[in-house]
Amino acid sequence: MKSELKIKSDIEIAQSTEMKRIKDIAQNLGLYEDEWEPFGHYKAKISLNTMKRLNDNPSGKVILVTAINPTPAGEGKSTVTVGLAQALNRIGKKAIVAMREPSLGPSMGIKGGAAGGGYSQVMPMEDINLHFTGDLHAITSAHNALSALIDNHIHQGNEVGFDTRRITWKRVVDLNDRALRQVIVGLGGPTQGVPREDGFDITVASEIMAILCLASDLTDLKRRISSIVIGYNSVKEPITVSDIGVQGAITLLLKDALNPNLVQTLENTPALIHGGPFANIAHGCNSVAATKMAQKLSDYVVTEAGFGADLGAEKFFDIKTRAGDIDPAATVIVATIRALKMHGGVPKDQLKDENVSALEKGLANLEHHVASIQKYGVPFVVAINRFVTDSDLEVNKLLNWCEENNIPVALTDVWAKGGKGGIDLAKTLLDEIKTKENTFKPIYELDMPIEEKIQTIATEIYGADDVEFSPKALKQLKEFDLNGWSHLPVCMAKTQYSLSDDPALLGRPSGFTITIREFRPSIGAGFIVALTGNVMTMPGLPKKPAALNMDVSEDGTAIGLF
Amino acid sequence: MKSELKIKSDIEIAQSTEMKRIKDIAQNLGLYEDEWEPFGHYKAKISLNTMKRLNDNPSGKVILVTAINPTPAGEGKSTVTVGLAQALNRIGKKAIVAMREPSLGPSMGIKGGAAGGGYSQVMPMEDINLHFTGDLHAITSAHNALSALIDNHIHQGNEVGFDTRRITWKRVVDLNDRALRQVIVGLGGPTQGVPREDGFDITVASEIMAILCLASDLTDLKRRISSIVIGYNSVKEPITVSDIGVQGAITLLLKDALNPNLVQTLENTPALIHGGPFANIAHGCNSVAATKMAQKLSDYVVTEAGFGADLGAEKFFDIKTRAGDIDPAATVIVATIRALKMHGGVPKDQLKDENVSALEKGLANLEHHVASIQKYGVPFVVAINRFVTDSDLEVNKLLNWCEENNIPVALTDVWAKGGKGGIDLAKTLLDEIKTKENTFKPIYELDMPIEEKIQTIATEIYGADDVEFSPKALKQLKEFDLNGWSHLPVCMAKTQYSLSDDPALLGRPSGFTITIREFRPSIGAGFIVALTGNVMTMPGLPKKPAALNMDVSEDGTAIGLF
Repeated sequence: MKSELKIKSDIEIAQSTEMKRIKDIAQNLGLYEDEWEPFGHYKAKISLNTMKRLNDNPSGKVILVTAINPTPAGEGKSTVTVGLAQALNRIGKKAIVAMREPSLGPSMGIKGGAAGGGYSQVMPMEDINLHFTGDLHAITSAHNALSALIDNHIHQGNEVGFDTRRITWKRVVDLNDRALRQVIVGLGGPTQGVPREDGFDITVASEIMAILCLASDLTDLKRRISSIVIGYNSVKEPITVSDIGVQGAITLLLKDALNPNLVQTLENTPALIHGGPFANIAHGCNSVAATKMAQKLSDYVVTEAGFGADLGAEKFFDIKTRAGDIDPAATVIVATIRALKMHGGVPKDQLKDENVSALEKGLANLEHHVASIQKYGVPFVVAINRFVTDSDLEVNKLLNWCEENNIPVALTDVWAKGGKGGIDLAKTLLDEIKTKENTFKPIYELDMPIEEKIQTIATEIYGADDVEFSPKALKQLKEFDLNGWSHLPVCMAKTQYSLSDDPALLGRPSGFTITIREFRPSIGAGFIVALTGNVMTMPGLPKKPAALNMDVSEDGTAIGLF
Repeated sequence: MKSELKIKSDIEIAQSTEMKRIKDIAQNLGLYEDEWEPFGHYKAKISLNTMKRLNDNPSGKVILVTAINPTPAGEGKSTVTVGLAQALNRIGKKAIVAMREPSLGPSMGIKGGAAGGGYSQVMPMEDINLHFTGDLHAITSAHNALSALIDNHIHQGNEVGFDTRRITWKRVVDLNDRALRQVIVGLGGPTQGVPREDGFDITVASEIMAILCLASDLTDLKRRISSIVIGYNSVKEPITVSDIGVQGAITLLLKDALNPNLVQTLENTPALIHGGPFANIAHGCNSVAATKMAQKLSDYVVTEAGFGADLGAEKFFDIKTRAGDIDPAATVIVATIRALKMHGGVPKDQLKDENVSALEKGLANLEHHVASIQKYGVPFVVAINRFVTDSDLEVNKLLNWCEENNIPVALTDVWAKGGKGGIDLAKTLLDEIKTKENTFKPIYELDMPIEEKIQTIATEIYGADDVEFSPKALKQLKEFDLNGWSHLPVCMAKTQYSLSDDPALLGRPSGFTITIREFRPSIGAGFIVALTGNVMTMPGLPKKPAALNMDVSEDGTAIGLF
């Protein structure tokens, strides 16, 4: 039976499952008909205006799903997120999934969905992975409208005095397109604009995406957009969107995108899939608007953050909870046997072979993340996301180690079994929430200097010995002081594969230093990005992109999507 | 009363009108619930699969609304289109509007909607003028995905042998962004792609937009996409999408965009608003899919084509009716007093002043278009779209002239009075359809050489003496012969302001020659574009763009859109 299940692909499972009409999902949540709008029969947008009515409802408990440092294939964090919410509903709790929405770019490149997997998926997966409700397109439009308005402002006389060598606002497409990383625009003579260097990022790397995910309402969205720094003048003073007076138009383009999207999981658990900022140059969490709305519509909100706990959980706790005034109730740390073996030194192509000693060695990575999460004072459970290749010996080793170290743990099999495979995890988690004290507090104070914030993250969360700042970074910090930006939280851009800033240092590296190469101010989003290395904000396509296998049947059924 | 009506802006009229739920509009059309998908409560997409059920229905009569050569402000063709359909419904006929959907770019630039005006508008106008159902975003994505796949193909080894100096597939954004007209991409070294010259068009100028508007179903859409010429190899042989094998992925991205959009007018007349190709480098008509579906759902389909009759009607008759196998039943030629006075030599700022002799002189332009339409053998009516500034003397002069020349004519006041203002036009038109013989035939045969097709259009429709071909154009024609493209129809790119290729020659110029500068093959769309001058495929923004006045209220109401 199990092996037969495993043979089906994610899209086959999704296409063979009957969905409920979104009308029924919305009704079950207690939403009135005029509070949401359908997008087809299986997707909806819920108006943020609904929050006024819901304001007096009690707030559901927020459960963050995070992970150890992942393998390049990922450890199934989304699948566990969906499976856990399904499991909570199976044991009589009211739970909602709050997840990020995927970008179109990567789906054209490397096979791999962003909507969970197996029997723990959100649906309709084809729509979610293609245009969905148009949020990413609205962000692309808003971002590029701002770009066009900047270049037009310069072309028409440059009243605010942009230094055209110091325009920091680039352009975006929601695609993997390496040829657009570095371009020259405005060529062709005086009627074609002013020539200058420019570049394109992928849409999910847009500051507007980060802003949409942190804004509490349209007024806050406009306030944040007004304060985006788009460039500098000749004396290096920042120029913002409000200086060229187009914050109203840009906000108008985003008015519908700000409303959270409602869909369902394979087991008809409601899911709010909304916003998907990068987890390096942004904070990697779904929107504050969706998380808070989910809290008002259910008792438990299961949500996730990008990459491992060193990046995702840190940003969730230190950036998102602050922007949204969210109190996290518990954390799930997803671990897999194969990733732990990788941290224990096993090469990628041998992860399927039993190797208990490598597993034991790799446990140091898990141990470190457990210690980090404990520093935030939030109850937690380690979830072992089981794969068919895991041996019983390996699984038992991991379970025993957790027990010996007093670490709450549960085995999950949500890919193959859906919510049923997450019931142990759900029960263990509820028990932890009930019995353990919650003393949540961010790891740093906002009034610390930026250097000190980074020092705290690096030593407390990464386990680094020290932080080095490049001369450029130090110079920038002085400018930030003058601009009044030092009170902002820090958004770390670091490799997800290692606790350090060197992707090759697996396990639990020690004796390392984190180097801050430079900063990028995201003043609209409300954080300062600290770059520890080269950050790719525009991916490329592989030699044989997934697009080569995609098609659509005569009647409109998607083929080869995943 | 009337002056009070005139004071309200289009958006105020739209926002103060109560719409029916789209569910009711769909039901009234006899659509089953599983044949359409809602996008909010006032927009829907109708599945093209529905055509299988509707196939045996009788086909409604198609009425084309076209115009004399317009002033830069336009002559209210869309408003008459909407008003006429409303009028037909008022007199007991079943009529549907089939119109183009607007581009976001121009709405950020110069004030002016594309959804009719006054009491003859389609609604919800804010949505239609912003993201609508995402068709343009889907086209932008599909177009740029192809661009990214081309550059990736080159970067990964260039197996099909693109000459990187001869890549004809550019990129697009749905914005007015002059700085992107001419760019260099692929800069930054060997990991960043191959440097080359490139440029961006506005999305509505994409060949994919033209294709979407001419495709009969998904299979035809894929066939057309496969045959798009994206560049040439080193021996100048064309390279198509199918050569790099991504037609399936590109079609997949368009699968929902191909379904026509259903909305309503201010008087609840159903409207299919679908597709919006440029009227110069493309054919400027809404989709064949929507027009044919509208025919199966009603007795009369009122549709329009971009610019004046020399461009819009010619392309409708010679390109769209062929691609869609559509028999036009009648034509409405919209004329305004102020445009006729302009053709009679009155400068733009004096068009409000009474000037009967200029009007008389300008009638030559109308007379010429009437003669052209008669050559196609389709019954027609001249519609005088009345403005408050028109004097009774002027209006009567025009009416009398039509009567003297046996030209069917009707006065319309659909902007101020909605359908009521179009009843005379509707009745006159029905009478013409009933009493006049319809001998419709395109103006040229497909098996004529391309030079001869152009010669026919230039002399018969524009009233030119002759056509000159540049040496480049003549060279291209030889290549087209070799490539087997000579059987395709021609898509003329010419100024809309004059019958000639010189925008300054108003009225009815004579003794002029049309010069064909060069050709652009649009093999996927299925036509050869003939350029008579510089064609702007990427507009710019004005000094004070409309974006400066746009905003959104706290509760999400659009402000300053028009």
